[in-house]
Amino acid sequence: MPDFTDSLKPASPSGPDVLAKERDQSDVPVEELAQHLLSRNDFLGRQERILRVLEKDPLFSKSKQMNLSRPERYQLGLARGKKLRRLTDQHGWNDEEHSMAQYLCDDVSPYMVHFTMFINTVREQGDEEQKAYWLPKIKAGDVIGCYAQTELGHGSNVRGIECQARWDPKTKEFELHSPTLTASKWWNGSMGRTANHAIVVAQLLVPKSTDSSEYTNQGPHPFIVQIRDLKTHKELKGTAVGDIGPKYGYAPMDNGYMLFDHYRIPHTAMLSRYSWVDPNTCTYSKPANPAVVYGSLTYVRANIIMHARLIMARAVTVAVRYTCVRRQFQDRDARDKNAPELSVLDYPTVQIRILPLLATAFALHYTGSAMQTLYANTRAQIDKGDFSRLAVLHAQSSGLKSLCTELAANSVETCRRALGGHGFGGGSGLIQLNNDYLSKPTVEGDNWMITQQTASYLIKRMAAAVAGKGEAQDEVEKACRGWLQGAHSKGAYPLPVLDSDEKLVQAFHRRSRYMTYQAYVEREEKKRSWNSLLIQMRKVSHAESQSILVTNFYNALQDPSSSLSPTAKGHLRTLLRLFAFYTMDAEARDFLKASAVSDEDLDKLPSKIQELMAEIRPHAVKLVDSWMVPDFLLDSALGRYDGKVYEDLFNRAHRLNPLNETTFNPYYKSDEIVMGQGSDELNRILAKL
Amino acid sequence: MPDFTDSLKPASPSGPDVLAKERDQSDVPVEELAQHLLSRNDFLGRQERILRVLEKDPLFSKSKQMNLSRPERYQLGLARGKKLRRLTDQHGWNDEEHSMAQYLCDDVSPYMVHFTMFINTVREQGDEEQKAYWLPKIKAGDVIGCYAQTELGHGSNVRGIECQARWDPKTKEFELHSPTLTASKWWNGSMGRTANHAIVVAQLLVPKSTDSSEYTNQGPHPFIVQIRDLKTHKELKGTAVGDIGPKYGYAPMDNGYMLFDHYRIPHTAMLSRYSWVDPNTCTYSKPANPAVVYGSLTYVRANIIMHARLIMARAVTVAVRYTCVRRQFQDRDARDKNAPELSVLDYPTVQIRILPLLATAFALHYTGSAMQTLYANTRAQIDKGDFSRLAVLHAQSSGLKSLCTELAANSVETCRRALGGHGFGGGSGLIQLNNDYLSKPTVEGDNWMITQQTASYLIKRMAAAVAGKGEAQDEVEKACRGWLQGAHSKGAYPLPVLDSDEKLVQAFHRRSRYMTYQAYVEREEKKRSWNSLLIQMRKVSHAESQSILVTNFYNALQDPSSSLSPTAKGHLRTLLRLFAFYTMDAEARDFLKASAVSDEDLDKLPSKIQELMAEIRPHAVKLVDSWMVPDFLLDSALGRYDGKVYEDLFNRAHRLNPLNETTFNPYYKSDEIVMGQGSDELNRILAKL
Repeated sequence: MPDFTDSLKPASPSGPDVLAKERDQSDVPVEELAQHLLSRNDFLGRQERILRVLEKDPLFSKSKQMNLSRPERYQLGLARGKKLRRLTDQHGWNDEEHSMAQYLCDDVSPYMVHFTMFINTVREQGDEEQKAYWLPKIKAGDVIGCYAQTELGHGSNVRGIECQARWDPKTKEFELHSPTLTASKWWNGSMGRTANHAIVVAQLLVPKSTDSSEYTNQGPHPFIVQIRDLKTHKELKGTAVGDIGPKYGYAPMDNGYMLFDHYRIPHTAMLSRYSWVDPNTCTYSKPANPAVVYGSLTYVRANIIMHARLIMARAVTVAVRYTCVRRQFQDRDARDKNAPELSVLDYPTVQIRILPLLATAFALHYTGSAMQTLYANTRAQIDKGDFSRLAVLHAQSSGLKSLCTELAANSVETCRRALGGHGFGGGSGLIQLNNDYLSKPTVEGDNWMITQQTASYLIKRMAAAVAGKGEAQDEVEKACRGWLQGAHSKGAYPLPVLDSDEKLVQAFHRRSRYMTYQAYVEREEKKRSWNSLLIQMRKVSHAESQSILVTNFYNALQDPSSSLSPTAKGHLRTLLRLFAFYTMDAEARDFLKASAVSDEDLDKLPSKIQELMAEIRPHAVKLVDSWMVPDFLLDSALGRYDGKVYEDLFNRAHRLNPLNETTFNPYYKSDEIVMGQGSDELNRILAKL
Repeated sequence: MPDFTDSLKPASPSGPDVLAKERDQSDVPVEELAQHLLSRNDFLGRQERILRVLEKDPLFSKSKQMNLSRPERYQLGLARGKKLRRLTDQHGWNDEEHSMAQYLCDDVSPYMVHFTMFINTVREQGDEEQKAYWLPKIKAGDVIGCYAQTELGHGSNVRGIECQARWDPKTKEFELHSPTLTASKWWNGSMGRTANHAIVVAQLLVPKSTDSSEYTNQGPHPFIVQIRDLKTHKELKGTAVGDIGPKYGYAPMDNGYMLFDHYRIPHTAMLSRYSWVDPNTCTYSKPANPAVVYGSLTYVRANIIMHARLIMARAVTVAVRYTCVRRQFQDRDARDKNAPELSVLDYPTVQIRILPLLATAFALHYTGSAMQTLYANTRAQIDKGDFSRLAVLHAQSSGLKSLCTELAANSVETCRRALGGHGFGGGSGLIQLNNDYLSKPTVEGDNWMITQQTASYLIKRMAAAVAGKGEAQDEVEKACRGWLQGAHSKGAYPLPVLDSDEKLVQAFHRRSRYMTYQAYVEREEKKRSWNSLLIQMRKVSHAESQSILVTNFYNALQDPSSSLSPTAKGHLRTLLRLFAFYTMDAEARDFLKASAVSDEDLDKLPSKIQELMAEIRPHAVKLVDSWMVPDFLLDSALGRYDGKVYEDLFNRAHRLNPLNETTFNPYYKSDEIVMGQGSDELNRILAKL
């Protein structure tokens, strides 16, 4: 309905004018940088192609979905998941195109696990016969799967899971059973309402002989199990399965629970590429090489880093654009009392929250990219059974997963708060992003826990370097030896980090080696208990990960094969320095203790950081533009490319808000809620409580 | 429906057994501590009384409310708000009892602003006639009000608001008008759907004389304005008003927008206790003393700190209880490979996230409490027109609001992550708490911005101390003079903080003085621009606030009039030291630079902190019990007093989750969502997008 608000405009300067000016004043080559960041495997081209399809489909419209209830969000998620599958068939999309569509849709799909863990486990753990049987059904969508490993009582400690698969040599079946409530499968995506099959990970119990009543526990093994009727989609007798309920985020996903009551499954249910129970003799055969699993974990983690950088880019895009458009207060020192208000991004207290995160998105890019390349290069060796490089790759990837998802998760909230009041509103575009991404610090290896893996590896390599026997086993041990022979034994002058990027990188190395050595001394020489060192080990892991991030960023800029223009390189170098100095300043004392940086230089870091932020400030809008995050994905009034912030906020409130379609009865003596409808609404709501 | 899961129990040891053992092993006097923390103004007695009423009313049942849509949450909020008003009438509750009911209900009420800002503004800014007219209607609930100050384009900078109230001497009316879209009132609670009146803050434009067409802008002034019809509750012609839509949290609150199109209101609409426009002469009279406003702001902020401590107590209660019940992994150094798994809280990496926050809740308590007492004591002076103590109180309260709400907001998320996977689930009880509380760092003065007020005050007092003329104006200046004459001019040895709590407190003072002095030099001597110092000023403000927190905690334990038992005092002292060392360790370099603590002592802090955490660990459950947060408020499967964590999680999933009542069609080729219902559901959802 047209009304007087239709003709109103925001106070000048308008958002579009502000952003146009920001873009005019900067020489950042947006197209070139976008290609540099996003052309790997044609990400950018794919994004554009798929975007054109989704944008015009009303099912993928996002602006009102925050008004739906959680059960409705699941239904919407299922409808979208189905539509994406149909679009995939229709357009002949490959897996990457289908993934891109999910990414742009920005809803976790109830089919997500089907396409990842479920199908991958059948591929990797199934024998040839099993693969031939299952894969066509999985691809056709007749079998819809989930992956049931984590339980109510055990997540990180997989060995502690309680669900049992007991081999019965008489009937030649396995009996799946949940002996306790905590044995319930829990959290498993797609299991709650969607899947009709599950990979169930259970403790394999095998009789000592065909007629023995004694069992050997062979540890957790995967079984493929039907969990719902293929026609009615109802649960099967002997199972109890459902959705676990509302969560922080991931509303469209039906994370589930499942219990088994002496539930029988055939011998063929056990995925038998590596392990096998002989149905006639009860003989159990072991996996040939358990290290295979590490390989794909490393690959998954490289992807987590690449994803984390896009999360940060998205948060920073919203923050930079809005804080340019938003103006508040004149400069307190301004002589002209009628001077225009400053862009909020002109305040160093806003810059310090946003611009280091912009730099961090780039830092993550170069390390994620390096990890992907490294993995691809070692993949050939792995396929030949050579796992020698895998240990270091795995150790690094644990620490990096921890640090990078932590940085990304915190960045969304930091950006959101930097938006001031409007950051709390639905128009920020950061609410679902935050709620969904906050799962990452605890899934795929809890961020605090997995730093042990990195630290443990580093301590071992330092111990080997101290022992110094034969050739160094890998580059980490080599670096430890170098540090022991150099800085450690001979003493070292602090490095001139303010003047040389090379020295800056070396300072991060030296600090990481120093901290590794300290931890080595505590554990190996002083024989301190493992648990008492956990906090220190997390610091060691983070120090190493930060060193990797700085190194890969620096190396990418030094790469002689790079075709980057000097202009682009200039800006990237400023970002590298901002990332490195900001990281260093936050943990300055470590660098001092490691003789990596002088006290005087550390004192200068805050003003150095402020200088670098001032350098980046005029280019901030074009630097975020380079990440090419489409408005469709941002779904943010504050972060729109065109800067029409206030028009969009008002439109969402005045024209798109369903709550405004109802007139309520506000008088407390009446229990009528909707004006003129008596107590119907109250009863309807009470029924839902 | 009964099924095989009814008879299942969690693996042992059971949650109740674990918590019973935890409680048995500790000598913490829970009752005594609870009285110590919560007896002020009979908080605890009131909590128990109101709790008994709410617990048995199904309208206040929380366990399924996460499944409601945002429009339903508003409706539920309105129904609850009404019910609380009716209960208030029925039981004869006073304001504090009504507030307690809101607190326990844990939903922000659509009437919240009516009872706070709206009624307070009429009381404080209305003249006698206005109060006599409005207050009875407000109390009766016939007039339902909101407070419309913040606009789409301006929040922090109140002087920048655009809404105009132009005095028309011909008709003797004010004309309210929104000249732009950014002039729209925005964020104002209760305005979206509930209120029928608003306090509108607008720029007062007064003609230079009765027949002049030139206007003088007298700045922002409050007007009381009817905004909806009292019968139909529809908006009035010349206004556009509605709810702004979904937000991060606060689902039950109808934060609103409102625009005026040459909307006329009578002369009596301007609240005229302090300011007045003579309707005959157009003469404007100014407020007598604008400092009155500061007084209530300080009071509000003392309450914010007291509230923040309860938020932290709540998060920590959930975290401590669950991490005791939760077990994962055996001790890596254990000789017995069948040793039971450790409680997660036994890991230092879990302790370091939770136990310092437990200590912080106590620290906030003593400062909130001290601020309330200080305000009450100065209130008498203020009423006599003596504002001398108000400036220091106001400056301190700004920095403390910033630091304390930051600590509390971050604590919820830190605790949530420390819960591992289950922290992401609805049973954590931390989701709505986090979503709602995350508004606090930006409302009532943006946390980054308002630290300027504290720093500005500190720099002024340091400048006065350097000048050193006459008597010191207040205790801050006195302390600055002491520091200048002592540590600064004569040099100082670092303080032995590890051995003496008194020295520990002094170290915080010395560091704050040192940082204030550095900022003073930059601003006053080097004449650096204000904006270039903003980051440094935030650090100055936080250093001072930390010093206040440590001091008040220490003073409370030294108080000779305290009747605390030695046992209670012993535990509190451990918490004080943990809070102080943890805070110091995070900013160790500041303390070194200020010659407050030696490098050697700073090196020892991490292991000192670990020792203190080990001391607190066996008492953690009883220490959180002392905060007496009722299960009804926690609404947390993980944090229940009785430890029945897994039973409750399973109950919520298996018996209380509405999504499990529907069977879906998971096959992608069909667009049927609910099994057997064709495309109805899809169309219903599409209509909502």
